[in-house]
Amino acid sequence: MPEAAVPVLPRVIALVGAGLIGGSLALALRRCQPELEVRVFDRDPGHSAAARRIGIATRVCADLAAAVEGAPLVVLAVPVGALPEVFAALASCLGPDAWVTDVGSSKCSVIDAARGALGSAFARFVPGHPISGAERSGPEAADAALFVGRRVVLTPTSDTDPRALATVRRLWELVGAEVGLLDPAQHDRVFAAVSHLPHLLSYALVEELAGRGDAQLLFSYAAGGFRDFTRIAASHPGMWRDIALANRDAVLSELDVYLQALQRLRHALAAGDGAALQATFERARAARLRWAEAGSSASVSNPVEG
Amino acid sequence: MPEAAVPVLPRVIALVGAGLIGGSLALALRRCQPELEVRVFDRDPGHSAAARRIGIATRVCADLAAAVEGAPLVVLAVPVGALPEVFAALASCLGPDAWVTDVGSSKCSVIDAARGALGSAFARFVPGHPISGAERSGPEAADAALFVGRRVVLTPTSDTDPRALATVRRLWELVGAEVGLLDPAQHDRVFAAVSHLPHLLSYALVEELAGRGDAQLLFSYAAGGFRDFTRIAASHPGMWRDIALANRDAVLSELDVYLQALQRLRHALAAGDGAALQATFERARAARLRWAEAGSSASVSNPVEG
Repeated sequence: MPEAAVPVLPRVIALVGAGLIGGSLALALRRCQPELEVRVFDRDPGHSAAARRIGIATRVCADLAAAVEGAPLVVLAVPVGALPEVFAALASCLGPDAWVTDVGSSKCSVIDAARGALGSAFARFVPGHPISGAERSGPEAADAALFVGRRVVLTPTSDTDPRALATVRRLWELVGAEVGLLDPAQHDRVFAAVSHLPHLLSYALVEELAGRGDAQLLFSYAAGGFRDFTRIAASHPGMWRDIALANRDAVLSELDVYLQALQRLRHALAAGDGAALQATFERARAARLRWAEAGSSASVSNPVEG
Repeated sequence: MPEAAVPVLPRVIALVGAGLIGGSLALALRRCQPELEVRVFDRDPGHSAAARRIGIATRVCADLAAAVEGAPLVVLAVPVGALPEVFAALASCLGPDAWVTDVGSSKCSVIDAARGALGSAFARFVPGHPISGAERSGPEAADAALFVGRRVVLTPTSDTDPRALATVRRLWELVGAEVGLLDPAQHDRVFAAVSHLPHLLSYALVEELAGRGDAQLLFSYAAGGFRDFTRIAASHPGMWRDIALANRDAVLSELDVYLQALQRLRHALAAGDGAALQATFERARAARLRWAEAGSSASVSNPVEG
């Protein structure tokens, strides 16, 4: 995928969605390029009011069209479940040369929705995914340093305009992120495996235990292993419902592979096959230690994802 | 279960096993009762040498019989898989009035092994489980403060001598632990659910991903959720093999319940049932937040278990 020479960012950027990601991006952009006009629109009046109060944007707009009008770059920082609706609304007000990008945690279904809604403007859409969520959400949690040293994955298609890709890459690099490219399907498979599936597994365990008559006894003996394993079960339910649905095929596929792995482990345990159990645990431990070592020496930190 | 009045600890305590738990208990006992004779035996010459070097015990013994001879209290701090062999060896050298306790993470199979090996001395055995392992192991990791504020579960049977129970309770309280009682089967069910199963689930995920051709790509995008979910996959493989086998029936039962929960979640996802997904995630989140709040206000910390 060829990219154009490093572009200068446009002087006006429209941010749709003033939650953690949108708010943090607005703050970060204003900090590193004070002359930039950063417009924000959020359909949640509470978010808009908070964005005004905190001074996230140069202008908090009353509707999508006002935010987008004349903006050469539009960043859609809304939950992945809201993107189809936003693409549809955007189709009628996006400028004829404006670039568009998003921050959704799944990419194939987002790309399908963009292709369907944007028509010829689809070539100006750069699918993106900053790996930089946090347990908190909303504009109050916005942090100008949220993306420093974090990864942002862009998943251009064969239709994507290289200038759009270069501009969006520049946007994220400007706020300190490390940008990588993945094929959209590969992206969805990777994140289904290392992020979406673990969330489902953690939610499922806590929910199952919580529904029992003796849940209180069970939880009273839960310790550090349980604490870490289940920390992601406190993640935002609506956001993860949307992610699971948006990346349904890849998540189902990963879940099925995992169910088979659990059946193999169950078989070894039922057979009292200590050697098989130990071999499985040893391979896991070695891989986990290698990963931790690689992570601790890399420049990219390992944030909570979304 | 009636208990005798708070007893004074005997002046000699024999510790079999000088790993993290045995070593920490020895250090803690010597710190709070300097006049105590703490004898240690470990069949691993490296552990014995380290125990001598670190000064864990008042005496590091060359064999089990020498450690146990004349000791009114014997603590078996060996991996749960080694307990049957240790019970068999102990039967021929245990003093006629000595109390015995263990630190194994499962209790029913340990009780069966003790009953089979110890004969009439079984009444003097108090099954125990300090919830206080750590990621490190061996005598070098020993820490006199390891048990302060931690829970120790004792699981006496109807045969257990109340004086033995009171003495072992006193032992753990002396080193700062909070002692609770559970029925052995209940103990095994509780820890299968909140500890042993999560370990299997975490091991299974990491091992499955690590075995793929594109494992390096997958791990390179793993972030904070993955880090926490898989931290316990770095636990000691031999120890967790032993725990899984020792608590096999309860772990299999919990695994089957969990597999059913995953199938329900799979069904909801395949059907695109966002409401069911969200309801599941919300119940999990609420329970996880309640647990974290209760834990943070309780006097008992939540350590890594073993």
